[in-house]
Amino acid sequence: MIDQSRSLLLTDLYQLTMLQSYRREHMDDVAVFEFFVRKLPPSRGFLMAAGLEQVLQYLEQAQFTQAELRWLADTGQFDESLLAELAEWRFLGDVHAVPEGTIIFGDEPILQVSAPLPQAQLVESRLINLLHFQTLIASKAARCVLAAPAKSLVDFGLRRAHGAEAGLLAARAAYLAGFAGTATLAAGMAFGVPVYGTMAHSFVQAHDEETQAFAAFAAANPTAVVLLIDTYDTEAAAEKVVALAPQLRKQDLIVHGVRIDSGDLAEHARLVRRILDDGGLCDVTIFASGDVDEYRLMAHAAAAVPIDGYGIGTHLDTSADAPYLDCAYKLQEYAGRPRRKRSEGKATWPGRKQFYRRHNEHGVMIGDTVACENEICAGKALLEPVMRAGRRLGPPPSLAQSREHAARQMRSLPAPLRHLESGATYPVTISEGLWQLAAKLDADKGG
Amino acid sequence: MIDQSRSLLLTDLYQLTMLQSYRREHMDDVAVFEFFVRKLPPSRGFLMAAGLEQVLQYLEQAQFTQAELRWLADTGQFDESLLAELAEWRFLGDVHAVPEGTIIFGDEPILQVSAPLPQAQLVESRLINLLHFQTLIASKAARCVLAAPAKSLVDFGLRRAHGAEAGLLAARAAYLAGFAGTATLAAGMAFGVPVYGTMAHSFVQAHDEETQAFAAFAAANPTAVVLLIDTYDTEAAAEKVVALAPQLRKQDLIVHGVRIDSGDLAEHARLVRRILDDGGLCDVTIFASGDVDEYRLMAHAAAAVPIDGYGIGTHLDTSADAPYLDCAYKLQEYAGRPRRKRSEGKATWPGRKQFYRRHNEHGVMIGDTVACENEICAGKALLEPVMRAGRRLGPPPSLAQSREHAARQMRSLPAPLRHLESGATYPVTISEGLWQLAAKLDADKGG
Repeated sequence: MIDQSRSLLLTDLYQLTMLQSYRREHMDDVAVFEFFVRKLPPSRGFLMAAGLEQVLQYLEQAQFTQAELRWLADTGQFDESLLAELAEWRFLGDVHAVPEGTIIFGDEPILQVSAPLPQAQLVESRLINLLHFQTLIASKAARCVLAAPAKSLVDFGLRRAHGAEAGLLAARAAYLAGFAGTATLAAGMAFGVPVYGTMAHSFVQAHDEETQAFAAFAAANPTAVVLLIDTYDTEAAAEKVVALAPQLRKQDLIVHGVRIDSGDLAEHARLVRRILDDGGLCDVTIFASGDVDEYRLMAHAAAAVPIDGYGIGTHLDTSADAPYLDCAYKLQEYAGRPRRKRSEGKATWPGRKQFYRRHNEHGVMIGDTVACENEICAGKALLEPVMRAGRRLGPPPSLAQSREHAARQMRSLPAPLRHLESGATYPVTISEGLWQLAAKLDADKGG
Repeated sequence: MIDQSRSLLLTDLYQLTMLQSYRREHMDDVAVFEFFVRKLPPSRGFLMAAGLEQVLQYLEQAQFTQAELRWLADTGQFDESLLAELAEWRFLGDVHAVPEGTIIFGDEPILQVSAPLPQAQLVESRLINLLHFQTLIASKAARCVLAAPAKSLVDFGLRRAHGAEAGLLAARAAYLAGFAGTATLAAGMAFGVPVYGTMAHSFVQAHDEETQAFAAFAAANPTAVVLLIDTYDTEAAAEKVVALAPQLRKQDLIVHGVRIDSGDLAEHARLVRRILDDGGLCDVTIFASGDVDEYRLMAHAAAAVPIDGYGIGTHLDTSADAPYLDCAYKLQEYAGRPRRKRSEGKATWPGRKQFYRRHNEHGVMIGDTVACENEICAGKALLEPVMRAGRRLGPPPSLAQSREHAARQMRSLPAPLRHLESGATYPVTISEGLWQLAAKLDADKGG
């Protein structure tokens, strides 16, 4: 009923009541809104920007359907003249943004919309919805990748993701951040994310004998034989795999891996590794899942646990230790004049902005500056123009290209952030010009 | 690209590799799967079941599109014969479930699917995805309603929800649990949830003067004049509302309420209430938002803070203090034989089940029993047949009817759970018959 790729009803009622007022007041000058994270969650030393691609697709496609307009009319809250205008609504603004996969911090504007006020206002809710979630998940995934750089990490989270779109976009964001792929088929089709899978406990349980389940699975799926060995007794099942492997080889079937999904994963992995090696199955990999997050991965890495890959579900797709970011999309300029919200604890840095990043001679990030758009600062400017008058500037990067960019960004992280040291911070400076602008607006008590 | 209401690619790869094996083995006897929460999060004393309606819609509509089948064929992992079968795939199984809005606890099967094994297996991922999320949010929302029974609670969470579907379904689940409505327009259209809204800070900022913003909004939206007063100075803005109200009245415009969104909400509400009352605006309500959850609501209730309604966003839509449930959809019977998974820490109670609830003479719940389907137990059986051979048994209840059911359920909660007392528990007993069945299967080392 609601087409998520374009529905303008994916918004809050107040956007339309405000539009109704803007229309009566003829307030359609250019407004500049910026999306930024106010403050990182305590458990995050950095974030990775993601979701830009979905935002641009939405801005290109967003419109009201006839059915949606009829529904709005039936609410009785909107003038016919407003509804007539909404029927023709298309986004015609400009957008600047950082590329997906860019490392970002608090106060840094990662997307800037310049458009007639009613346009920039109406898209607020969906734009935050898209940027917030993928940035949340890419950031969590990046931590997992840093915690287990040599391991193959696969998103297993669709079932615990918050709805279907969350499952799809989590798979995309995790791949962007360096995951090997996902178990979610729809994410493979929608985004080209590589798809991986093994078998479920129900498969083993439905068979009368575990070995029979393994043999049948291998015969039916010869290209990816990964056998789940923890349905009853993990080590006993590993022994069964060792016994079965020579018989399978006679049918040209190779066991590629085993999966462990319960108990003490590290302890089981060590025992299973020994059983497999003693049985001549040194090439069979061990894949683990179940309550895995970056902290578990770090502990395994420190203890050299012989696990080759991990399925990460719930903790990834819900970003369980930090399930939201304190982010906002705020009006910074209207009709050429900088604006500032001064609400307690939520004051914003006013005006159109840019931010700059400096690197040392080894390419490691050493500090950022958030500045007024026209200020000259040291470092590389990170906000780039991506859309003008509602049309993209050039074809979007492929997901693979964005993933490469993300990998380069992660290599440029300072060591304390790369090692996920708790409490590690990164210097983000507010420029002299921005301080002055804020002070001037406060003194004027202007907007 | 992916139609979330019916796409069978909203699943994990392993479901299809298992189907490929089941097909070769002619394993298509009836399987019984049950969905249940293993253990409640520490911060939850009860849960509220939700999402059943979306599950049934999905089961009725689920199919593969030609494009999806072509994509699957292109992966090279699936036999043509399997793909031909998938082209005809329709769900033809039976479903038992508890009504939406029912209070539930750990180990209680809230949905049971009986269908040929490959059918019951394939729908697993999306079925968990739908039941998990709405149950998660309805449970969080029910806590908010219990914490502030006399207040009007509105879902404000779309922007921080995990994607669009999460925003829509959170609005639905919160309304089911007793919220007054949502700010999300699309949820109004899709589910008939009442829609509420005020104005944003950007609206005030875009105007040169706050009073001018208030007057313009009232003129444009006479039916719901709720003015946001914390953009610059909350109490000063309340004074402006008092000064403005008589002028508005001359135009037959009534200020219905003010909203506070930052700072110490309780303290501001008290000051603002006094200003409004002293200004003769006793009927103007105070609405608050910003970092509100059930704990904040309880603190306000205890201190008799003069706030009439709350917008609850992030904490509701992400269930921030418990962003996931430890839930599963597990094979309990295949081909007439009970099955049991025995993985460490994840062992399941086997067989087709039912669960029963007993009440005292005041209608208060006093204990549940989870039992084998054919056991006779005291109390009311809660699992009801809802679908047979892929077709619903009768028209679904309206959302309003389910909301009534939820309200009755909440009234039947024991006082410690209704008061959200920390550590409050509820007795759920495993029946004698179920213990015996589990012991027998363990002794047999059968599945």
